[in-house]
Amino acid sequence: MSTLKRKEYAIGIDIGGTNTVFGLVDHRGAISYRGAVSTKKHEKIEDYIQDLYIALQPAIEQAGGIHNVEGIGVGAPNGNYYSGTIEYAPNLTWKGIIPIAELLSEKFGVPCSLTNDANAAAVGEMMYGVARGMKDFLMITLGTGVGSGIVANGQLILGHDGFAGELGHVTIIPDGRLHPGTGLRGSLEAYASATGVAATAKEFLETRPEIETKMSAYAKEDINSKVVYDCAVAGDLLAKEVYEFTGKVLGLALANFVMATSPSAIVFFGGMTKAGDFILKPTQKHMEDNLLPIFRNKVKLLFSELDEADAAILGASALVWESKL
Amino acid sequence: MSTLKRKEYAIGIDIGGTNTVFGLVDHRGAISYRGAVSTKKHEKIEDYIQDLYIALQPAIEQAGGIHNVEGIGVGAPNGNYYSGTIEYAPNLTWKGIIPIAELLSEKFGVPCSLTNDANAAAVGEMMYGVARGMKDFLMITLGTGVGSGIVANGQLILGHDGFAGELGHVTIIPDGRLHPGTGLRGSLEAYASATGVAATAKEFLETRPEIETKMSAYAKEDINSKVVYDCAVAGDLLAKEVYEFTGKVLGLALANFVMATSPSAIVFFGGMTKAGDFILKPTQKHMEDNLLPIFRNKVKLLFSELDEADAAILGASALVWESKL
Repeated sequence: MSTLKRKEYAIGIDIGGTNTVFGLVDHRGAISYRGAVSTKKHEKIEDYIQDLYIALQPAIEQAGGIHNVEGIGVGAPNGNYYSGTIEYAPNLTWKGIIPIAELLSEKFGVPCSLTNDANAAAVGEMMYGVARGMKDFLMITLGTGVGSGIVANGQLILGHDGFAGELGHVTIIPDGRLHPGTGLRGSLEAYASATGVAATAKEFLETRPEIETKMSAYAKEDINSKVVYDCAVAGDLLAKEVYEFTGKVLGLALANFVMATSPSAIVFFGGMTKAGDFILKPTQKHMEDNLLPIFRNKVKLLFSELDEADAAILGASALVWESKL
Repeated sequence: MSTLKRKEYAIGIDIGGTNTVFGLVDHRGAISYRGAVSTKKHEKIEDYIQDLYIALQPAIEQAGGIHNVEGIGVGAPNGNYYSGTIEYAPNLTWKGIIPIAELLSEKFGVPCSLTNDANAAAVGEMMYGVARGMKDFLMITLGTGVGSGIVANGQLILGHDGFAGELGHVTIIPDGRLHPGTGLRGSLEAYASATGVAATAKEFLETRPEIETKMSAYAKEDINSKVVYDCAVAGDLLAKEVYEFTGKVLGLALANFVMATSPSAIVFFGGMTKAGDFILKPTQKHMEDNLLPIFRNKVKLLFSELDEADAAILGASALVWESKL
């Protein structure tokens, strides 16, 4: 029997391109303090760390002092679990390699674990969400971009360098749509993200101007995924077809992922999940159509039930409790 | 300290569609007895087991009796590690679900572990081959078909149902070439297998009859991957282009797999590897071209160095020593 006792709290930090949100989280996943600082406004990482340090003091006070905090877990774009560094994140102000885990650990005097935001979400889902008890599942975040976390044998797949799980960037349509951020063509993210949905809607409007649609009431630059959703809800056929097409690409991609790691479920998270059955039904149909028979009708497609704002914090904090990913 | 001592030998059995090969293997991976029986000629599984039992007696005798054998490891198409059953293997005589591990275990009186042939090869490669010491790698078998085994965090990825690692069946070219065995279109196996190479050569000959090529000396039904190889070695440009095209599809597929699990190496195994640089160079180029920058120039492409006949036996026997996959 071990004489070591885990401390009561962990701090979860989710670093986004615009804002950083954080929370004080206990073992059961209850968040007892929430806060936020701007990510974008700090050009220097040192200023950002200092701002975060100040903003977190009330949380630490509420915990009864830093000695009651087991550690800090951070989810960040291009966050590397092995090195504790954020590496060349295109959406962050700080360029190059940022040793964020070391900086935070030194500043706060507690251990700090880092992984990328989608991996953090997968860990959160496994500990507190719909994936509780699952040993093999995929987490797919459908937001401005498409992120993913792969869990197999009960462990997060990090890869030899910590960068595994970039399913948003796999090629689904060779020589397909250009992704302006990566320069790659036909990637999942170019179609199945909010940005991709808007691009599909614009393409449909341009190439099929004869079709009557509520979307034509909008200026081209105002077409976004929310417009597509609102029009689909209002019964617009072309808007529904945008989701049908998106689901075709996403379903094909999911079939590929399923035949690779054979998960029991795929958990969706992020703004695009608001589209509900508009996106889920075609996705499920095309996934099943592209699977070998031995994989069919086995994989559950689930929506995350975690509150969107909380999930990121929970996922990051869960890194602290998961001593071995 | 444990008082348990592992026995000296394991039996490795590789069940192929035509033949079954087996061997007596020690801890260091030395095969001291080799044998084979026909798979195809036994319509009844009981007859097959009996034949295998008789054929293995000299091996067991050489081990000094079955009490010196730790167990039997079996690699078989559609072999399921969790259930110990071969399920609906299209290339085997026995249909439906075959409880092969139970049948062998009862017959021989030792434990029996089963997995699919490509997974067995991955385990063999990790224990005795070029992947020794690697915790994250992919094994791709390029033979009549395309098989695969995924190792991450030092463990074989089996998935929730034991069927993970079917990378040969992922769709690379949507609405592409029909795979007559699966009915799916555009799968990796439809292009990057020996069968796929022959199909590409036939397509090229048909659609570009104006091009001078040594391959046109062959009747269409005689075109196979060996003909393509021989012509490429003799400097034939169209035959080389067949490999270039195959490498383009394979490279694109590998890029997708790399961005999923970020392996340190991809190990190729099987008849197609004889094509050497003809296939390796275009594969590497197209893989790199389709990767995000953070993954580039990191993944080693390696050919298995295990003797082809032995590798299957070694891989299967390694299942016995690997108590936890």
